[in-house]
Amino acid sequence: MLDQLKADVCAANLALRDSGLVILTWGNVSGLDPENGLVAIKPSGVSYEAMQPEQMVIVDLKGDIVEGDLRPSSDTPTHLELYRAFPAIRGVAHTHSAYATAWAQARRALPCYGTTHADSFYGSVPVTADLTPEALAGDYELETGRAIVAAFAGLDPLQIPAVLVAGHGPFTWGTSPARAVENSIILEQVAQMALATESLDPNAGPISQALLDRHFLRKHGKDAYYGQGNR
Amino acid sequence: MLDQLKADVCAANLALRDSGLVILTWGNVSGLDPENGLVAIKPSGVSYEAMQPEQMVIVDLKGDIVEGDLRPSSDTPTHLELYRAFPAIRGVAHTHSAYATAWAQARRALPCYGTTHADSFYGSVPVTADLTPEALAGDYELETGRAIVAAFAGLDPLQIPAVLVAGHGPFTWGTSPARAVENSIILEQVAQMALATESLDPNAGPISQALLDRHFLRKHGKDAYYGQGNR
Amino acid sequence: MLDQLKADVCAANLALRDSGLVILTWGNVSGLDPENGLVAIKPSGVSYEAMQPEQMVIVDLKGDIVEGDLRPSSDTPTHLELYRAFPAIRGVAHTHSAYATAWAQARRALPCYGTTHADSFYGSVPVTADLTPEALAGDYELETGRAIVAAFAGLDPLQIPAVLVAGHGPFTWGTSPARAVENSIILEQVAQMALATESLDPNAGPISQALLDRHFLRKHGKDAYYGQGNR
Amino acid sequence: MLDQLKADVCAANLALRDSGLVILTWGNVSGLDPENGLVAIKPSGVSYEAMQPEQMVIVDLKGDIVEGDLRPSSDTPTHLELYRAFPAIRGVAHTHSAYATAWAQARRALPCYGTTHADSFYGSVPVTADLTPEALAGDYELETGRAIVAAFAGLDPLQIPAVLVAGHGPFTWGTSPARAVENSIILEQVAQMALATESLDPNAGPISQALLDRHFLRKHGKDAYYGQGNR
Repeated sequence: MLDQLKADVCAANLALRDSGLVILTWGNVSGLDPENGLVAIKPSGVSYEAMQPEQMVIVDLKGDIVEGDLRPSSDTPTHLELYRAFPAIRGVAHTHSAYATAWAQARRALPCYGTTHADSFYGSVPVTADLTPEALAGDYELETGRAIVAAFAGLDPLQIPAVLVAGHGPFTWGTSPARAVENSIILEQVAQMALATESLDPNAGPISQALLDRHFLRKHGKDAYYGQGNR
Repeated sequence: MLDQLKADVCAANLALRDSGLVILTWGNVSGLDPENGLVAIKPSGVSYEAMQPEQMVIVDLKGDIVEGDLRPSSDTPTHLELYRAFPAIRGVAHTHSAYATAWAQARRALPCYGTTHADSFYGSVPVTADLTPEALAGDYELETGRAIVAAFAGLDPLQIPAVLVAGHGPFTWGTSPARAVENSIILEQVAQMALATESLDPNAGPISQALLDRHFLRKHGKDAYYGQGNR
Repeated sequence: MLDQLKADVCAANLALRDSGLVILTWGNVSGLDPENGLVAIKPSGVSYEAMQPEQMVIVDLKGDIVEGDLRPSSDTPTHLELYRAFPAIRGVAHTHSAYATAWAQARRALPCYGTTHADSFYGSVPVTADLTPEALAGDYELETGRAIVAAFAGLDPLQIPAVLVAGHGPFTWGTSPARAVENSIILEQVAQMALATESLDPNAGPISQALLDRHFLRKHGKDAYYGQGNR
Repeated sequence: MLDQLKADVCAANLALRDSGLVILTWGNVSGLDPENGLVAIKPSGVSYEAMQPEQMVIVDLKGDIVEGDLRPSSDTPTHLELYRAFPAIRGVAHTHSAYATAWAQARRALPCYGTTHADSFYGSVPVTADLTPEALAGDYELETGRAIVAAFAGLDPLQIPAVLVAGHGPFTWGTSPARAVENSIILEQVAQMALATESLDPNAGPISQALLDRHFLRKHGKDAYYGQGNR
């Protein structure tokens, strides 16, 4: 089972590289096996060129290394905080993709300007608060996770599987490592479109709640009728 | 004959993917066989990787499935409304391409700022009105088609083979599925150029009617002299 | 000799396609053989996929077809006017590349904001005047050529081998068809950079005459010291 | 040993081409062998297509050619001034990449808007002063190097391994030719993000000193914990 998890996480990391969202060794994807509460994650600073499933590092939800010869991604404590706080998620992805990062750097939530956004994110994608000096001086990556969780008070993380960390960049998640990567791809696309939308109309407003409901729920609600019913 | 239609529609869907306009499984293309009034369309939510002509779904103009094991694209009722209202068209394409979608999200018609636009679209590309709450709560995809048709009152759909659906994205069409895809490619290019044009000159105005006539008619009028006369 | 000219022009058209500057069948390149005053040019509306040197059309400087089964590019009269008015040039290229076209659509000359521009264009790249209604109703493509020539009154076309046709797009030229294509590539790059420069500083001004001189002349003056001395 | 240096410098030049940052023959990378004080650099104006290690030109720190049949890059005096003034660096790269060049053309230092920037550049990336008319008329490329060195008064060139030359473009450096290229790639990415950040918030400010410290030092400080500890 860990072999499958490592293979899925490795494949998701390579899919992230193939998406064009990350350059150099930036970006990382993890996956959770809910049966034993173990997480597989990309090793830190390792090239995508020769990445193998065996290189994925296995950690428990406290962050102790269970298996693997390499150091896990330095963002591991952020991933783990998300798995602990959002029990339904099975994969987390992190990138510095250009447009999503620009929104994060502008410290702005990403408004829902159209159905492309509404098909995947049920409302604005939140931006975190800045970390306090104390948090920055403490367990920084854990505090980043806590800031994300705080930004989701009252929100369902599977209805808005993405966040913008202020001054940093996006994290996305989903029901599998592959879905987390897919959400990174979608987030970057809608972040680019939203910037262009504001250039064309500085007073652009979000779509109506009725249109948001219609699009999100036709793909994700209990009466979803998009796809082949097996996704 | 349906084999040919399915092959053409499958090829057009793959051409759309190869164009770079769509990511993941977004986008869909259909084609009409006017002899029997049947439409072939991409199945919903199916990957482009292994797409085969046999997977194309055949529906009649009322939307009843005539042939095929998969569910047709959820946008099928929009396509069918276009075929019913615009009898000369033989293909329809839908994308969420970044720049055309940004204009749709800004709820702005795309002005004709140059001859690149005029070569393919005989004037501004219209934007639809927002759907009413009643339309959103009803047959949403059919109502989307009706909003497009309403936006073309007094316009010739073969002279302006494209529309921007407010808050959603572009639909294009043409005399074949391949031409519908070609018009999606052109629309995205001129949408990008138009945004840059406005950045360079916030007071930019459309080209003159005389220049618009000259360019559109040299390619499409009865005295067209572009190409080899066999297009 | 015409075989060589056709091969060079075909290769330059394919290089234009490979540059990413043109989509579909847009864009065209021609070349002049000065010994016999004949021009080879891309046929109109023909796909790049299977383009062969034998398909290039040979016309004389008056526009009469000397050799070839296909119709020449509809822009041929523009190319010919440039060869007649600028006797030192041996190749002409035309694209609708996105950023150069945006400047043309904004009807703005492209300012020299940096040494990238100065390395190839010795000052602003001119924009033509709008064509008069009479010119639009007459020999449109010839009139386009005349508008370009008028914009170069007092300028050396080999020192600024590019122009923006108002409401249309760029033409570039050079001492060979390959050089004309190279100048299209450079023009697009500096057009993109200039737009971004103005976004970063709405009051940006051109570089000094001294810096312009230094860069253009180190590559193109009689004391040029760039490259291996054999270009 | 010079064979290894030439191979590294050739590979770094090809990596620069593969990065998509340079077009045509633009861009150049050099490397220093500190044991003998010799520098290998790309020859001037030579195509990337058939570039071989043997073509790299070896010069000493005064600029005299020690080995090689080709003329060295015309930017060689700039590279050499950097090696003389910044003794810790082992590679230098120069590009005209679009976004970094736009900042250079706007004569603006690149602010640190996020952790992507902070991971590699410990604060704003400086922009040089304009060269004086005397400098432009003198040893231009050497004076460019001097302007860069002047812009780093009080700064550690290994903490901010990049600069924007006013009206020209970026130079980057690092502890190897490959690292210099990597820093060109990162600089272009953060230059693009910073432009988008300002579009989204014209009053955007840099990240806090505490966040800058945290990110730069987790990768580069004496207690760095990013990567596998062997970079």
